[in-house]
Amino acid sequence: MSVFNVELKKVVDDSYEIEIGYGLEDKLISDLKNGLVGNITKFAVITDSIVKELYADRILEKLTKAGFTADLFVFEAGETQKTRETKEFVEDSMLEKGYRRDCCIIAVGGGVVTDLSGFVAGTFGRGVPFINYATTLLAAADASVGGKTAVDTPLATNLIGLFNQPEKVYLDIATWKTLPERQVASGLAETIKHACIASREFFDFLKEHINEAFDIKEEVCERIANENCRIKYEVVMKDERESGLREVLNLGHTVGRAIETVSGYRLLHGEALSIGMVAEVKLAHKLGYMSLEESQEVISLFEKANLPVAIPEYINREELVKKLYTDKKVKNGRIRFVIQKGIGDIVEFEEGVFATPIEESVAREIIMEI
Amino acid sequence: MSVFNVELKKVVDDSYEIEIGYGLEDKLISDLKNGLVGNITKFAVITDSIVKELYADRILEKLTKAGFTADLFVFEAGETQKTRETKEFVEDSMLEKGYRRDCCIIAVGGGVVTDLSGFVAGTFGRGVPFINYATTLLAAADASVGGKTAVDTPLATNLIGLFNQPEKVYLDIATWKTLPERQVASGLAETIKHACIASREFFDFLKEHINEAFDIKEEVCERIANENCRIKYEVVMKDERESGLREVLNLGHTVGRAIETVSGYRLLHGEALSIGMVAEVKLAHKLGYMSLEESQEVISLFEKANLPVAIPEYINREELVKKLYTDKKVKNGRIRFVIQKGIGDIVEFEEGVFATPIEESVAREIIMEI
Repeated sequence: MSVFNVELKKVVDDSYEIEIGYGLEDKLISDLKNGLVGNITKFAVITDSIVKELYADRILEKLTKAGFTADLFVFEAGETQKTRETKEFVEDSMLEKGYRRDCCIIAVGGGVVTDLSGFVAGTFGRGVPFINYATTLLAAADASVGGKTAVDTPLATNLIGLFNQPEKVYLDIATWKTLPERQVASGLAETIKHACIASREFFDFLKEHINEAFDIKEEVCERIANENCRIKYEVVMKDERESGLREVLNLGHTVGRAIETVSGYRLLHGEALSIGMVAEVKLAHKLGYMSLEESQEVISLFEKANLPVAIPEYINREELVKKLYTDKKVKNGRIRFVIQKGIGDIVEFEEGVFATPIEESVAREIIMEI
Repeated sequence: MSVFNVELKKVVDDSYEIEIGYGLEDKLISDLKNGLVGNITKFAVITDSIVKELYADRILEKLTKAGFTADLFVFEAGETQKTRETKEFVEDSMLEKGYRRDCCIIAVGGGVVTDLSGFVAGTFGRGVPFINYATTLLAAADASVGGKTAVDTPLATNLIGLFNQPEKVYLDIATWKTLPERQVASGLAETIKHACIASREFFDFLKEHINEAFDIKEEVCERIANENCRIKYEVVMKDERESGLREVLNLGHTVGRAIETVSGYRLLHGEALSIGMVAEVKLAHKLGYMSLEESQEVISLFEKANLPVAIPEYINREELVKKLYTDKKVKNGRIRFVIQKGIGDIVEFEEGVFATPIEESVAREIIMEI
């Protein structure tokens, strides 16, 4: 009998820049010319059927004009497309067009496009570099920091995927102007969640300026983009593998994710999150971590952002309770919640533990009343 | 316009042990009891329809007896099963049985099982730990070092996957006794390749002891397992991302992989590699890097190991030439070969470059004559 030791200790640097601005297409091209991804000259631009005409076509044109080889890979827009089947479709299309390991992926779109493209990039040729050109507020809020990529399966959302960091992220605020109002609201849901986790001051800013966000007022949007990055980054940097602290980002998501799925994606992610946050603040109040006034303050901000704060009639609430068990925070068969402490802070139940088991009966009770 | 810097520099330690011995099932259980994967108590044992009854059933029983929760996930044996569909099947089965992020995967089987399971582990819940319990000589030779996991697609072999290091590898030589002789030969093909790359002395050892390897003589097999780990490790350790040096492990694989695919997997990996190595030594001789005697010496060792050294009649050679272009070493549309220098060394074409472009006409000529 003998033992062979494989020593694989090394320093990994996955650092990257997030550039926030208005109209960043030319900046992307000049960054590529200046060696952002080394000497790669072949780019797979992945986008969805809506963003294609709005932005991706133009980026493709600029890439080609700059002398790069580039092709567009387009899938149907919508959260229901974030599947292994779409991933396969993109992979096969890339292989057919002769893409191999010497390429770079550019994701142009919202969270669905960036999540899926980052996952494709992570496993194509065992990993090729990728760049996110985010065209939604939700992507700015949620998908630009953290390196989480994934697809959904019939049995669970976001459970098949990997951690994969982009080479660079562009948050182009100009693109928010073409977002339907419902999508802006959906992005604001994650933004409000971030404020609830980490900053009373930012929460107050949102209370005051939420209407200007809907008008895509530049300073307000830039502040929103920056705060989203900063808050998420501070959490993620301290805990890249989501072992403890990072769970705070799951605030509102235990119920939110479940509603999103049970609604068959009729609810946008942010809409589902908004309802999930209502459940969470009610729970936080019940457990004594929030005053009634604070919980109402949070609920009103979601309302002010045109987000739903009640479970729609068409949702089967018993099915919803059952669905809570597919949440990735489930441990030893028990559902767990992240709970906020007042506004701008999170309860740490014991050292490094930010989610607590909740009895099904308690969760059911809250679900029945909203 | 503003730039937000995401700093993600860190030290990663992916080191692991390869334990080589006879009958390591109890050692696996005691390692798990002693915290090999921390306090995880839930194990998904992935195996194929042949290895299930031979070893996986028993390992499952031992796990359960030791107080762990464990389930078996079985797919049809064979290289053609290393697909995204099988990966989905395993994922869905695991999700259905309630597996989430708090589990560990144990792969019990040969290269197909360990490649596929390592890939499943890498993307299940964005990554769960995995252990390889290798039951074939080929897995010992090829799959135990390097962290390469992947599946095949209709358009390319091993192009969808990721780098993922196991927590530990067990090379149980006792299991080789149940291998069909054809599988032993297939494993010896990678072994001979390793000798050709790095050790004239080991090559001579194989010449002398190849028959004892077929009898699974313990000292011979242990030397084979050890040398395979050592040679592969020395290459891989110096170049974990396969940018340069690691390409030497592709010796014989430009033609080998293509034949394997064109044969519709009628040829085992090692059999296809054997033919690919014949093409490679003929090319090496043609280019002046090997004497005729040396090339014949290599070909005879493959013959002595009961491996094919000619392209079977049923292979369409023109299709084979075309297939060369799906090789992952293809760069700027040109096929590339790794070339050995005598026996036990590899040609370095320029610093860090171990594969060279070859004209299609030259490759075709060689393919036509074997």
